Amino acid sequence: MVGTGPGSIEHLSPRALKALQEADVIAGYKTYIELIAPIVEGKEIISTGMTREVERCRAAIQRARGGQKVALVSSGDPGVYGMAGLALEILHRENLFDQVEVEIIPGITSATAAAALLGAPLMHDFVVMSLSDLLTPWEVIEKRLALAAQGDFVVVLYNPASHKRTSQIRRARELLLQHKKASTPVGIVRKAYRDGEEVVITDLEHMLDHPLDMFSIVIIGNNQTQRMGNFLVTPRGYAL
Amino acid sequence: MVGTGPGSIEHLSPRALKALQEADVIAGYKTYIELIAPIVEGKEIISTGMTREVERCRAAIQRARGGQKVALVSSGDPGVYGMAGLALEILHRENLFDQVEVEIIPGITSATAAAALLGAPLMHDFVVMSLSDLLTPWEVIEKRLALAAQGDFVVVLYNPASHKRTSQIRRARELLLQHKKASTPVGIVRKAYRDGEEVVITDLEHMLDHPLDMFSIVIIGNNQTQRMGNFLVTPRGYAL
Repeated sequence: MVGTGPGSIEHLSPRALKALQEADVIAGYKTYIELIAPIVEGKEIISTGMTREVERCRAAIQRARGGQKVALVSSGDPGVYGMAGLALEILHRENLFDQVEVEIIPGITSATAAAALLGAPLMHDFVVMSLSDLLTPWEVIEKRLALAAQGDFVVVLYNPASHKRTSQIRRARELLLQHKKASTPVGIVRKAYRDGEEVVITDLEHMLDHPLDMFSIVIIGNNQTQRMGNFLVTPRGYAL
Repeated sequence: MVGTGPGSIEHLSPRALKALQEADVIAGYKTYIELIAPIVEGKEIISTGMTREVERCRAAIQRARGGQKVALVSSGDPGVYGMAGLALEILHRENLFDQVEVEIIPGITSATAAAALLGAPLMHDFVVMSLSDLLTPWEVIEKRLALAAQGDFVVVLYNPASHKRTSQIRRARELLLQHKKASTPVGIVRKAYRDGEEVVITDLEHMLDHPLDMFSIVIIGNNQTQRMGNFLVTPRGYAL
């Protein structure tokens, strides 16, 4: 289970590169496989669309049981809204741990990739949440947003919106505004380290003026987060 | 500002490697510079102890103002309890953004490095917190722990304990136990991807039976987190 980082091969670890090179089969969502195309050229590819994760995992596991080396690819880190959990669940339920050797290879996750492009918004305690309610009841997401705001955490939102899901981010903003000021700085990064990269610094008041989709990460500051030059910074509290 | 990842050079990105190779001066905490010694051999090193961050940053900035290429090194990611925020703050306060060109190069942060060694405990919404109260009032940390537990977040603790700070982790455990079961799985990773690496899966009841220090990351599950084989997994909720 290989994390390929935010996008460009510049951010892929040597361990991940080696695993991809040694693999007989590469399995993953097709958009992410395209990002690493030069590395996996000529290999067998198991590539399915965005919502076919279970199918893709089962196919990967079947190849591994047959003795092939399979790289199950997630962009970012495989353990943060990636494929690692699902693959381990299937192996566990089907009692396959003695048939398949597993290694999880971490990658740079979108939260820290986006943060690096914005400056240093994650220097203090933060929450990572997905706004996708496909697999999580919306009430749970609402509750967590409210608690995160109450705790003055920096909040990182994965999957803030999609073509079909547009109301969630509006509601999330309302909940955050109950405990965070409208002037709280917000960073939006789309396609971090990929072609078409966009980096925006705005605030809770104006964040919905900017386009958001499944390629966007939204980072909402805590009560100390400030714009400094072109950067967004959450001070840690050093005496200067 | 360069993130060198969890430890071994296997997890350092090509972008970070290139920045280290091109730098005239390497600045950072000495333990972390030792981990990348083969790469930075022969270069000028500005290395100070753990609590001398401000001094180290100022020295790095002074060299950069003098026209040298400086790599200010953080292990993990420079933006997660690393050096990026402090350096940007100093540049901002001293009005130096037009004198020093800045790039923040992300790295694999300890939370995801530890998670990969444990399995996939961060597959659902999580909180990243530091238990160090050197720079943050302890009341704020207590409040955040309580809210994180209430929200059934997976909780990742950085800096859980040091030689001097031993009571914080005991109190944190008490607060988490107010909303999480004693049987909640806990993963402890010490020195991830370094010599002496230790990986333990335990639970909230027994977590204090294991040694904890500044090299440890503690991950406390949510109410779905399970031990599966030798792995710790937080299911995302796929129908299987």
